Amino acid sequence: MADTISSTISPEGSLEILSQHEVNRLHDTSRTGLHDLLRSCALAVLNSGNPTDDGLALMETYPDFDIEVLQQDRGVRLKLTNAPAEAFVDGKMIRGIREHLSSVLRDIVYVYNEIQTHHRFDLSTAEGTTNAVFHILRKAGTLKPSRDPSMVVCWGGHSISREEYDYTKHVGYHLGLRELDICTGCGPGAMKGPMKGANVAHAKQRRHEGRYLGVSEPGIIAAEAPNPIVNELVVMPDIEKRLEAFVRLGHGIIVFPGGVGTAEEILYLLGILLHPDNADMELPVILTGPADSADYFRRIDEFLVYTLGESVRRLYDIIIDDPVEVARTMRKGIDGVTEYRRARQDAFYYNWRLTVARDFQEPFEPTHDSMAALALHREQPVHELAANLRRAFSGIVAGNVKERGIRLIEAHGPFRLSAEPELMARLDELLNSFVAQNRMKLAGDYVPCYTLG
Amino acid sequence: MADTISSTISPEGSLEILSQHEVNRLHDTSRTGLHDLLRSCALAVLNSGNPTDDGLALMETYPDFDIEVLQQDRGVRLKLTNAPAEAFVDGKMIRGIREHLSSVLRDIVYVYNEIQTHHRFDLSTAEGTTNAVFHILRKAGTLKPSRDPSMVVCWGGHSISREEYDYTKHVGYHLGLRELDICTGCGPGAMKGPMKGANVAHAKQRRHEGRYLGVSEPGIIAAEAPNPIVNELVVMPDIEKRLEAFVRLGHGIIVFPGGVGTAEEILYLLGILLHPDNADMELPVILTGPADSADYFRRIDEFLVYTLGESVRRLYDIIIDDPVEVARTMRKGIDGVTEYRRARQDAFYYNWRLTVARDFQEPFEPTHDSMAALALHREQPVHELAANLRRAFSGIVAGNVKERGIRLIEAHGPFRLSAEPELMARLDELLNSFVAQNRMKLAGDYVPCYTLG
Amino acid sequence: MADTISSTISPEGSLEILSQHEVNRLHDTSRTGLHDLLRSCALAVLNSGNPTDDGLALMETYPDFDIEVLQQDRGVRLKLTNAPAEAFVDGKMIRGIREHLSSVLRDIVYVYNEIQTHHRFDLSTAEGTTNAVFHILRKAGTLKPSRDPSMVVCWGGHSISREEYDYTKHVGYHLGLRELDICTGCGPGAMKGPMKGANVAHAKQRRHEGRYLGVSEPGIIAAEAPNPIVNELVVMPDIEKRLEAFVRLGHGIIVFPGGVGTAEEILYLLGILLHPDNADMELPVILTGPADSADYFRRIDEFLVYTLGESVRRLYDIIIDDPVEVARTMRKGIDGVTEYRRARQDAFYYNWRLTVARDFQEPFEPTHDSMAALALHREQPVHELAANLRRAFSGIVAGNVKERGIRLIEAHGPFRLSAEPELMARLDELLNSFVAQNRMKLAGDYVPCYTLG
Amino acid sequence: MADTISSTISPEGSLEILSQHEVNRLHDTSRTGLHDLLRSCALAVLNSGNPTDDGLALMETYPDFDIEVLQQDRGVRLKLTNAPAEAFVDGKMIRGIREHLSSVLRDIVYVYNEIQTHHRFDLSTAEGTTNAVFHILRKAGTLKPSRDPSMVVCWGGHSISREEYDYTKHVGYHLGLRELDICTGCGPGAMKGPMKGANVAHAKQRRHEGRYLGVSEPGIIAAEAPNPIVNELVVMPDIEKRLEAFVRLGHGIIVFPGGVGTAEEILYLLGILLHPDNADMELPVILTGPADSADYFRRIDEFLVYTLGESVRRLYDIIIDDPVEVARTMRKGIDGVTEYRRARQDAFYYNWRLTVARDFQEPFEPTHDSMAALALHREQPVHELAANLRRAFSGIVAGNVKERGIRLIEAHGPFRLSAEPELMARLDELLNSFVAQNRMKLAGDYVPCYTLG
Repeated sequence: MADTISSTISPEGSLEILSQHEVNRLHDTSRTGLHDLLRSCALAVLNSGNPTDDGLALMETYPDFDIEVLQQDRGVRLKLTNAPAEAFVDGKMIRGIREHLSSVLRDIVYVYNEIQTHHRFDLSTAEGTTNAVFHILRKAGTLKPSRDPSMVVCWGGHSISREEYDYTKHVGYHLGLRELDICTGCGPGAMKGPMKGANVAHAKQRRHEGRYLGVSEPGIIAAEAPNPIVNELVVMPDIEKRLEAFVRLGHGIIVFPGGVGTAEEILYLLGILLHPDNADMELPVILTGPADSADYFRRIDEFLVYTLGESVRRLYDIIIDDPVEVARTMRKGIDGVTEYRRARQDAFYYNWRLTVARDFQEPFEPTHDSMAALALHREQPVHELAANLRRAFSGIVAGNVKERGIRLIEAHGPFRLSAEPELMARLDELLNSFVAQNRMKLAGDYVPCYTLG
Repeated sequence: MADTISSTISPEGSLEILSQHEVNRLHDTSRTGLHDLLRSCALAVLNSGNPTDDGLALMETYPDFDIEVLQQDRGVRLKLTNAPAEAFVDGKMIRGIREHLSSVLRDIVYVYNEIQTHHRFDLSTAEGTTNAVFHILRKAGTLKPSRDPSMVVCWGGHSISREEYDYTKHVGYHLGLRELDICTGCGPGAMKGPMKGANVAHAKQRRHEGRYLGVSEPGIIAAEAPNPIVNELVVMPDIEKRLEAFVRLGHGIIVFPGGVGTAEEILYLLGILLHPDNADMELPVILTGPADSADYFRRIDEFLVYTLGESVRRLYDIIIDDPVEVARTMRKGIDGVTEYRRARQDAFYYNWRLTVARDFQEPFEPTHDSMAALALHREQPVHELAANLRRAFSGIVAGNVKERGIRLIEAHGPFRLSAEPELMARLDELLNSFVAQNRMKLAGDYVPCYTLG
Repeated sequence: MADTISSTISPEGSLEILSQHEVNRLHDTSRTGLHDLLRSCALAVLNSGNPTDDGLALMETYPDFDIEVLQQDRGVRLKLTNAPAEAFVDGKMIRGIREHLSSVLRDIVYVYNEIQTHHRFDLSTAEGTTNAVFHILRKAGTLKPSRDPSMVVCWGGHSISREEYDYTKHVGYHLGLRELDICTGCGPGAMKGPMKGANVAHAKQRRHEGRYLGVSEPGIIAAEAPNPIVNELVVMPDIEKRLEAFVRLGHGIIVFPGGVGTAEEILYLLGILLHPDNADMELPVILTGPADSADYFRRIDEFLVYTLGESVRRLYDIIIDDPVEVARTMRKGIDGVTEYRRARQDAFYYNWRLTVARDFQEPFEPTHDSMAALALHREQPVHELAANLRRAFSGIVAGNVKERGIRLIEAHGPFRLSAEPELMARLDELLNSFVAQNRMKLAGDYVPCYTLG
Repeated sequence: MADTISSTISPEGSLEILSQHEVNRLHDTSRTGLHDLLRSCALAVLNSGNPTDDGLALMETYPDFDIEVLQQDRGVRLKLTNAPAEAFVDGKMIRGIREHLSSVLRDIVYVYNEIQTHHRFDLSTAEGTTNAVFHILRKAGTLKPSRDPSMVVCWGGHSISREEYDYTKHVGYHLGLRELDICTGCGPGAMKGPMKGANVAHAKQRRHEGRYLGVSEPGIIAAEAPNPIVNELVVMPDIEKRLEAFVRLGHGIIVFPGGVGTAEEILYLLGILLHPDNADMELPVILTGPADSADYFRRIDEFLVYTLGESVRRLYDIIIDDPVEVARTMRKGIDGVTEYRRARQDAFYYNWRLTVARDFQEPFEPTHDSMAALALHREQPVHELAANLRRAFSGIVAGNVKERGIRLIEAHGPFRLSAEPELMARLDELLNSFVAQNRMKLAGDYVPCYTLG
């Protein structure tokens, strides 16, 4: 039985000054359907010092944990019952954890009120969605007008080899030495390594205001809790807004090796950058890993060139086994972003100019029909092909590893794709290479879940 | 012909991070009927270093002045045409003036959008109004959660004698020595003296974070521009919300000698404090002036005791000609407020617990009918009598000095009040004493504008 | 009988961390002959809020005042007996006064130990003296390595007309608007006005780190106490080191109208700047006053041109009745100083490169012999003539207004100067103009105290 | 061949404002015999990011490295030739390393001037030595008057097992969670672990001003370079002043397992605490290690009780395998220190009250004569016995592992000690236990280097 503590605490930051009306709403909302969400996310954060990273197991370890929003004239208070004892020191909650907990409350309950209930934003339009993302980030204090561009978004797998993990730390270290900040999706692996490395480098450079920004999402925060280095936490409402937050906040993006999900993120990013409206956009993108991981990016690169054309290569650099070169290239790229935005009077803190087409803001639900309807040929604009490939990819992943997808395949047989045969073959090849590299979590042998329709 | 400069500047503070949507609205709203208001308030602020304090004359001095809100990806910019040259040094706007200008834009245009257009608050209820006042002040950054109570609101006349002005400076000085801050309504006289005194004292005490909060209103800012010491400026939408801001922000209130308006403010304040819900409220109130002004407060005190009863005296101290005693009493009173709020878990920065009855939030429009309808007798709860007296007072002032009121009297004869005869006589006496003290701005001799109905 | 308070306080700043040995020495030294000096200077500072500025009268007002340095393991404490009550608020010393008191202790007792007793510096050489000045200023925290040049030294009379005083405020205001700081000799008149003006301007510019540096001397601090705006106080050991501190700290110098002493200071300054080693030195000097004071500078200018040659004019600007132009010229001049020092890798905080000849570091004792020995002709290098004129001047002042000088004249008749007749006539003319302008404090009619020898 | 960079840099901190005279002396001194010392220490610091920690090997890796103090009007500059490239990022020195380099220059060259050349301190007396230690620490900015006691000195071995190293990290982590700071002797092992742990904890507690103070000595800095977490570095002139710095700076002391040297440090500490003058001194001491190291402290404890009496145990706690308990006990102990010093008006930043007898300030040179002269019996005050035991210990270590001692033994046979036989046997036993635990670095088998004389 795990040690627990019950305590009542005051939240931090933007929840400090609330009107009585806001306190009431917060109190009321927290008792609706959001309560379970709030409870599981809060527990994830309270447990973040703990090696166990399985959300379900966590709830079982702390079955009596509860969180309640109390209402006072002065503002809200949070009442915690049977919370993990490790979040406290001699009965007092660790300050960093208190900040994360306040972030969770702010983003889950408060933002829910503003964004989802009160219809201040038309989430059915690209503009309304982008506006909502902006408001959530501003509310979280993430947009800092006085800072020069320095935010490097790092993507990659959560479950990577020790060698790859150490590599992400080295890259983070050399980014940090160059006064760059790190934004990741929270959790272990490639999400943690760059922050750890940058933190050491910032200490050496006496850079006290280093930023370690974690952008999470309710569905993953329990399994991928913010590590203790994260000093700013935002919980976006869903996976698509989280992705949009990354591309609008980041001044540069580094992709480390990962699984199929990482490949999907690369397609998301290139699909946006290939949009004609973004033709002159400055956004440095680097794909990098240690020597042994070179094959991962070589395969992806070949597939991208085949499907999207040779010119796609101008959108990214592949740098293998050279953290210093990665950091120098990124520093130079971000200096370019600074000039670009200054020349256009653009904000440094939010990339308004970037066009994110509506179809990148909407989730894709893979079914036999939706998969069959995808146009997988090269007789269309490349950014549309990228969008469709990303969807196909998403469906294939689902058909192999997600419960709902596997059941669909069992019931109706493989998805039938109407694709160019050569493109289809390339896709097979790419997926097989991931299997060979052990980058797909499979229960048994790999059997493709699709055929040419 | 006054020297002018045309320039484009960036706003400060809370207008730094705006969404594109907000920038658009700001831009659009500023071109509607609000444009004239924005223009006159901006001019008042730009001219604040200048001795001329007459709003109309100001517009005539700078007939070609204009202000425009420009829209950029990065945020808003303000384009000023033919602005007073004195707001600039070698072509660059003085920083304090830029801050005041940003406050004006924020409160007039931005708050207009939020409060008045979008109906987020039900301004027909006491609760909704109080909530709106809170949101305006929070938006302005006026509510500071980490500070102990220290805000002394100072009221009194704008047009007072040199001796009285010097006295307000001395009181401000001794408040400042005791680490207290000053809030006034901007402008000259009793609104400026306490800030000047406190500023010198804060310098001597090396209190670098001293607050000099000006709470203004669009109708008066042109005539009573913020003096340069004001380092926080809020423009409330109307006179009633401004009064409510004073009583909810202030941790103590000092009333210096003034005219009839000051007497009306005293009735406003006592009317609130006499409300049964506020029976145990801690809010130190001190009436004070130099020796020669003792009569002003003696007369008011007598009138208050007669109308509201002896027990009204527990709500205020009258201290004559003793700035040190005033400051000590206020310091002690505010220490009491600190304890009171701490014991009740109340916020330090906004007095939610204070009940402000709906009739103190609504303006009173004096007409023959409304005046005749006032219940001016002592057979009612004292806080209601206070409210009615305040209204009677307001009507009498209007009938004597305000254009609209004078015309009503010319057309229909004096207002007919249904008052207790003794109370009526006391009122006459009080008003006559103000005339004798030269505290009413009259064109000719004083003729009462009312009779017993 | 004045109100007094007895109290024990802790010093501030550089006296916070002392070794036990230092505490002992401080304690012991403060009981030697320095005790009277410490006592009178401390009283001056404690009384600085008070209009009376006569040192002797002050000691009579507080006859029982005493100060004692107590010794504790933790460091020194200051025990004050019967100190002016106005230095305290509710029993607690005003922080700014506590800082000034700590400065006095530091500079009088502590520096006495280091500089005068322990012979760390050879005060008989120019280099040793300059080094001692440096160490006193560094100990006082006056040398700030991270600031750009901004220090404007203001000289001029303590006893000037209201019009001239207001003019110094206006100049200070426009300097302050241009982010410049003020250094003066403490006390009233031209020493206070520029600080008051700059303080208002810094508030308007939100320049919170504005410096108001007072450089005093034990002989004058009692009569010319630091005004409350002074936020850094240094007490130099004697008048010559004080002058050297001014020219090595200042990035520019403004001279306002004054008496004969001011004229002597101008000769001091030009004597240094005319030294061949300083030929390419950048140090902007502006002589300025209101329109009615134009004659003062016209006369001085004529005398300087006659004695030192037309080319002396390149060393200063005379600007009459134009505070804005003064401030602009000074700002531009100081920008030039910044470039000059940067180009030569010179420190911003102390002008090591300036040559101050030994004869400007030594006091001149006027006697019939020393006066007769002065070479007052133009057949010598101009910087030597300037030095000699400054001495002649000093002697003439002494013969007219200083007790010791007047007695010498009474006993032995007028000083006999061996001067060129024309130069002598010009000198007469200049001194007569000062008398006519009421700039000499004379008991009766003006009778020259010298003749051509 | 290692990558190198040549560059000229400005020092940081207390070397920023130097007089020309000081710059000259620094320049001159750095070219004397101190040059080799400066060079080797500077190289150690420049190489601190590098895993190799062998001073000699380091000089061989960078044979052409040199450092020169340049002289400029503005102050000193450091010219580095062929310095390790890893101290730079894109040609610019890492800021933390620049700070360490400035500390080395300050302490080696500057302090050498002040302390050793100019005879300001009588180093032959206890008082003079304590005073010199104070001045070096004050010059280094180590004494911070405004902080509450929080400095935990951690001692223990540099070459410890992985398990012991991890344990020191855990203890540091739990100290850091309780807002405590860490002071060690720089280098790896028990000197690094507590800082690493505290650094993580401070990040979690958002304690941005955490102190990681390294106190080194020229003889060891090359082999035990400051790790990158060290944010304050002081290089004391010799090993005894370093030990005195530890006990006067520390508010509590934790001893981790180590070798014989650690045991010697324990005797140093207890010898001081047993001095009658220190009878009521508050200084919490905790001996701690993981479960497997319990025997180390058990043996030491037995020996201490036998030799110094049961009551010695009141001076320390032994806590095995419980980092949380260690941290709680230390936190409580330091709260006691705070009260103790407050009650006595003692400084928080330097323990003046602690008596360090002269024989603890002087090095002991082990020879056959000096060893034979030691009084090793219990018929003397315990603090004297502790001092003698520490010396005996020191000699035994020398005879076993130090070059000079081994040669003495080879030449003259074992040291002859005149000890009580039982005490002698206990000593044998203790040393044998260290050998058994692998805590003595021996070339071959252990042969005692002493006999009963």
